[in-house]
Amino acid sequence: MEKERVTAVYLIETPYTLERAAEVIAGEQSTGTFTAVPGETDQLKERHGARIEQIVELSPVSSPTLPGSKTPPGHDGLYRRGEVTISFPLHNFGPSIPNLMSAIAGNLFELQELSGLRLVDLELPEAFAARYPGPKFGIAGTRQLTGVYDRPIMGTIVKPSIGLPMADLQQMIMDVSAAGLDFIKDDELNANGSYAPLAQRVSAVMDAVNRAADATGKKIMYAFNITGDIDEMERGHELVVKAGGNCVMVSIMSVGLTGLAHLSKYSEVPIHGHRNQWGMMTRCPLLGFAFPAYQKLCRLAGADHLHVNGLDSKFYESNSSVVSSIRACLKPMYGGYGTMPVVSSAQWAGTAPATYEATGTVDVMHLAGGGILAHPGGAAAGFASMKQGWEAAVAGIPLAEYASRHPELQQAIAKYGKG
Amino acid sequence: MEKERVTAVYLIETPYTLERAAEVIAGEQSTGTFTAVPGETDQLKERHGARIEQIVELSPVSSPTLPGSKTPPGHDGLYRRGEVTISFPLHNFGPSIPNLMSAIAGNLFELQELSGLRLVDLELPEAFAARYPGPKFGIAGTRQLTGVYDRPIMGTIVKPSIGLPMADLQQMIMDVSAAGLDFIKDDELNANGSYAPLAQRVSAVMDAVNRAADATGKKIMYAFNITGDIDEMERGHELVVKAGGNCVMVSIMSVGLTGLAHLSKYSEVPIHGHRNQWGMMTRCPLLGFAFPAYQKLCRLAGADHLHVNGLDSKFYESNSSVVSSIRACLKPMYGGYGTMPVVSSAQWAGTAPATYEATGTVDVMHLAGGGILAHPGGAAAGFASMKQGWEAAVAGIPLAEYASRHPELQQAIAKYGKG
Repeated sequence: MEKERVTAVYLIETPYTLERAAEVIAGEQSTGTFTAVPGETDQLKERHGARIEQIVELSPVSSPTLPGSKTPPGHDGLYRRGEVTISFPLHNFGPSIPNLMSAIAGNLFELQELSGLRLVDLELPEAFAARYPGPKFGIAGTRQLTGVYDRPIMGTIVKPSIGLPMADLQQMIMDVSAAGLDFIKDDELNANGSYAPLAQRVSAVMDAVNRAADATGKKIMYAFNITGDIDEMERGHELVVKAGGNCVMVSIMSVGLTGLAHLSKYSEVPIHGHRNQWGMMTRCPLLGFAFPAYQKLCRLAGADHLHVNGLDSKFYESNSSVVSSIRACLKPMYGGYGTMPVVSSAQWAGTAPATYEATGTVDVMHLAGGGILAHPGGAAAGFASMKQGWEAAVAGIPLAEYASRHPELQQAIAKYGKG
Repeated sequence: MEKERVTAVYLIETPYTLERAAEVIAGEQSTGTFTAVPGETDQLKERHGARIEQIVELSPVSSPTLPGSKTPPGHDGLYRRGEVTISFPLHNFGPSIPNLMSAIAGNLFELQELSGLRLVDLELPEAFAARYPGPKFGIAGTRQLTGVYDRPIMGTIVKPSIGLPMADLQQMIMDVSAAGLDFIKDDELNANGSYAPLAQRVSAVMDAVNRAADATGKKIMYAFNITGDIDEMERGHELVVKAGGNCVMVSIMSVGLTGLAHLSKYSEVPIHGHRNQWGMMTRCPLLGFAFPAYQKLCRLAGADHLHVNGLDSKFYESNSSVVSSIRACLKPMYGGYGTMPVVSSAQWAGTAPATYEATGTVDVMHLAGGGILAHPGGAAAGFASMKQGWEAAVAGIPLAEYASRHPELQQAIAKYGKG
């Protein structure tokens, strides 16, 4: 019986007691109106009601994080914080990602009894695994396709992100393939714009990929950004597969979890999941979702690779948050669902040691734009420096020491290092 | 040339100057890396770069709204606020809602140079109208289907929201149909759960709807919640249409704008757009989206009805925000795209006058759960009181005065009125 419930953990803030706030959250799932209506029997509540499983009190604050909360009579001025665990009967909504979202998130963010609500964890019963088979390739499949087993899969992003003439794009692919890179992806800004329609890009890119593979003996993995409307994505995927492509990318928040799950039904190559727009769901610390909860839904919906930002990135996110995202992606789900975390943004050889130290894994994709392409010795030297950074990290050798015997790493430190 | 750009207006907060922050926002759209890369020519920037169109300074604050911003050297402790208008060349992404989102939202919420960013308005060129035909029924079509022309379309929500036995649901439909209501909808929590699969609900509901129509001569509009995975929604829509149903509902944030646009391609009945989960995109005043911007995308994607919350609701949202949402939905787009705002949450006859006074329109759906169903005189009296509330509002007669001649309104005031 217990496994037939979904469990959600919320970080909440409330001018009421935590108990009262938890009751409102649970109640919003069974009646949803401001006045009692006929037919709401105890039996119905027992069968369909959400249940408060646990309340852990945290330190209160003296002002509300979010606007619009109301205060109870005689309010002492404190806004209580706590972690509240609520469970929901699965039969209310079934193993359906979109309907799960209406239940566990729904109107909760708008309640007046709360001045903050954030979904921080989520446990889903096996029924979800029966409906959503998860990543088709995942970590193992991606390693097999790239032939890289003992280190991170390393790659870069097409730069400039938009506007690169096809001939220049082809040259870039030839160059990074010659440099030995495992992977290259379109920028999230570059999908199917009229200046460079996907069909044209697929043809030009695959021509370069194949020519480079003939020369090097290794076919680089190219993630084509096929983000688009539902039918457009299907056509995009078909274009890529027919041309011999080996990866597609989508902006998950653009196509929705339903769009991703739909793509996953017919996809024949790994799906590279980009999470742009994610900031609006997570940057306010008392609102939205934490990534360890959200990534489970992305994995269910079929993301083989999943962006997690990077350590010391150009974005606001703390390193500890990035580390917990990487760890979350690598935590097994249903005995499978292996999604490869994609570490990117302001990355270079020097971000490898801290990433490895904090996560203890080489099961990541490590992407660098400028950190490879703008290396003083060129892309091949940039790639070499990235490998050297990870070699040092895994061997536990200080970067500077390792660099004394590896000139590409030395050059990278000179260019990108801060100290 | 100007019409081939998309214009986005952002409310921003930054420890830098507004000019610098605007440059970073615009720049994030053309290079997206932390170090200059080859190939980024002036010509490319001119052709593909985002452009700062206007900066309007607002009052600064002394502490950052969102965490994780970095401060410039010699920071004076102020976080500047302003409205920044940025335009993007359409050819970068084409008239595609999902790729538009990656461009106008993308990684912007995560920039360290900002301590707040919210998309408050959006202007889209005609090319979007050519690709997305918008609502098929809208206000006019919904009025035609319900036969209600001179007042709001009034309805209720199935309550209890989940767990109601089929026989009780049928009885409820018979009752509210006999009471004369125009419209009834599933709760957003009730879609296709195993305790009440959609197929079973469609059959039971339509049986009751048709029996009631035989008795009253008026077929109530029933919005079936078909929220689900992409294929599941298609099957759900087919079930509803084949059974003679006249409306489907989806939780837009659950199915995504792409899911909504896909449904809109084949829908044969109005699409009732529910916006649950919206709070996580909007409750932090310096993050996410404002509804007047977001509703344009929902209309493009085909929502015939669109939830906007209600005045004096049980939620955190201010009345002025609700009013601006209603007005935004009613503002013409591309000479059409008429979406009917759906006013709900803690609604009753007494919320009509303020709603009418602030918006000057009867082109809304006005939904009440308890406000109709829990009326002391029953559902028919609840419905009568709602109509009376709007009659008083449109005639400019104070509610109490009008109630002196209308007992149902009098009873409603006695039960739900605060003063």
